[in-house]
Amino acid sequence: MTVLILTCEEDVTADMVVVHLNESGVPVVRLDPADLTGSVALSGEFAHGSFRGHLSSGGRLVSIGGLRSVWVRRPGEPAAHAAQPSPWLAEESAQALYGMLRGCGARWMNHPDAARRARHKPWQLRLAQSCGLPVPATLITTFPRAAREFAQRYPDLVVKPVSGAHPQDPPRAVPTSRVSPETDFSAVAFGPTLLQRRVPKRADIRLTVVGDRLLAARKASAAGADPDEVDVRFAASAEPWRPVEVAPRVAEAVLSYVGEAGLAYGAFDFAEDGDGTWWFLECNQSGQFGFIEVETGQPVARSIAEWLALPGAGDPGCPDGGDGAGAAVR
Amino acid sequence: MTVLILTCEEDVTADMVVVHLNESGVPVVRLDPADLTGSVALSGEFAHGSFRGHLSSGGRLVSIGGLRSVWVRRPGEPAAHAAQPSPWLAEESAQALYGMLRGCGARWMNHPDAARRARHKPWQLRLAQSCGLPVPATLITTFPRAAREFAQRYPDLVVKPVSGAHPQDPPRAVPTSRVSPETDFSAVAFGPTLLQRRVPKRADIRLTVVGDRLLAARKASAAGADPDEVDVRFAASAEPWRPVEVAPRVAEAVLSYVGEAGLAYGAFDFAEDGDGTWWFLECNQSGQFGFIEVETGQPVARSIAEWLALPGAGDPGCPDGGDGAGAAVR
Repeated sequence: MTVLILTCEEDVTADMVVVHLNESGVPVVRLDPADLTGSVALSGEFAHGSFRGHLSSGGRLVSIGGLRSVWVRRPGEPAAHAAQPSPWLAEESAQALYGMLRGCGARWMNHPDAARRARHKPWQLRLAQSCGLPVPATLITTFPRAAREFAQRYPDLVVKPVSGAHPQDPPRAVPTSRVSPETDFSAVAFGPTLLQRRVPKRADIRLTVVGDRLLAARKASAAGADPDEVDVRFAASAEPWRPVEVAPRVAEAVLSYVGEAGLAYGAFDFAEDGDGTWWFLECNQSGQFGFIEVETGQPVARSIAEWLALPGAGDPGCPDGGDGAGAAVR
Repeated sequence: MTVLILTCEEDVTADMVVVHLNESGVPVVRLDPADLTGSVALSGEFAHGSFRGHLSSGGRLVSIGGLRSVWVRRPGEPAAHAAQPSPWLAEESAQALYGMLRGCGARWMNHPDAARRARHKPWQLRLAQSCGLPVPATLITTFPRAAREFAQRYPDLVVKPVSGAHPQDPPRAVPTSRVSPETDFSAVAFGPTLLQRRVPKRADIRLTVVGDRLLAARKASAAGADPDEVDVRFAASAEPWRPVEVAPRVAEAVLSYVGEAGLAYGAFDFAEDGDGTWWFLECNQSGQFGFIEVETGQPVARSIAEWLALPGAGDPGCPDGGDGAGAAVR
């Protein structure tokens, strides 16, 4: 049974995982859907009530029925590298590739449906609440009056995007920023705005979940740090990321979250307040982990490789021989 | 409890359903996400472990927690009608709107995840097979040799798109066409191609599923019809659509299909062969039904209205008070 990795050519994070898979002797095929109709080819036949499908990458053939897992890492847009790319070719290629893979019995990290759903910030906040994670008071609104009232109740505020990175090319990360409660909120009417009570933090927490394995890292806020620097991605800091224990109550809530979300991988961001409470900020289903592994020595890549190498759903002895899509979304 | 209909302004099919909902006195809010930040506004607050959200359309306010069902009919792209539309505003608006709705307890026709998955033709064919529906032998390939071999085994062939309508503006339906087994298939290498054994048909079948209700219509092929006219959408025919009974075995398979797919609505197309067997061609989760209702008098719109009017998941007495997203995808 083979591990399929969908990612672009230059992906050192995927390289880290492939090293571990190679060491354990697990067959791996790595391909970029962007190379479809070039170095990547596919074929699937539905006849007599059954399906036989194959993928080929760089001349290497793999049976779709023989996949144990699929890692959707950073795949390019299907057929983007074709000699004559077009929206029509991209759509035909996407439907053909993912349509065949969706029917296979492999386990997904992460399933496309679960990944797509997990991107929705309002859905994340709701799920985190229902799993018992503390969520800072948050408002998403196009009503200026609602924004003003929220700012009166929670005058220490930050504003951040609802959807994540700005979709320019290349995508641009939009920093979380403080906003004064005296701000003129009338422009809120022109676009949904996410306001959140600022958590006065003494550390940032990155908790990486791989299957049922939790790897948490903590980066202390520098003493005397500028309180306007709320976004750890943009703040200069000499403090390193260090491994940290996860309280049992948090571990239980986080595993409940990824279980409900159908995620095999998730990168949680928390803000640790002065009492040591971890406040849920977000869960990025495709969050980077290389910087954590480098600074803390935590074996994220190895954990991913081990998860990918587990027996596939189609293997004998696996209780779920089903469609895989449904299994992962459930 | 209110029914929310997401669709564009000019949608006579939605009008047909709204008439029935109005007659039964069920509150309805209809809005187009394209009107966001114009006549449509939203607000949601996450605080103290709970969520309170509202939508407003044309000055009418509805609580997100008070929705019994959401009908995703033909919604426009979020904020497309804004004074200054942009990809960023569209993304922020989509994530805010659908992110909040995904967290509500309402039933969906159809849930966005289920709808998206159900579009994949290879996935459809696989699911139809596993539900016991007869599927004509089908090949999807970028290997010219595989296409040639398939054409030798099934010389009476049609070719059709993998993904459905061509994404030009407005989208263009691509007709299913016959193809000679002597065709030069070398161009298959430049784009995934779907070849299918042609079913010599004596009728087209449109089977509309609404919840667990099946409404089937049959359009006999005209005697002496041009055998090259394989696509009922493009063939001139004086034969009308007429109601037809569904064999119990087919009914069971179709209900199993929509159950697995998590669809509350689906329009199945079958080809009826000389033996009376219905061959599965596709299931369109957003298929039109107006033409069927007009020709056959079958109460599709009323069935949809009745499904939408059922008690919501948040209603007392409803067993599933959960997230709604998960419930609908399951």
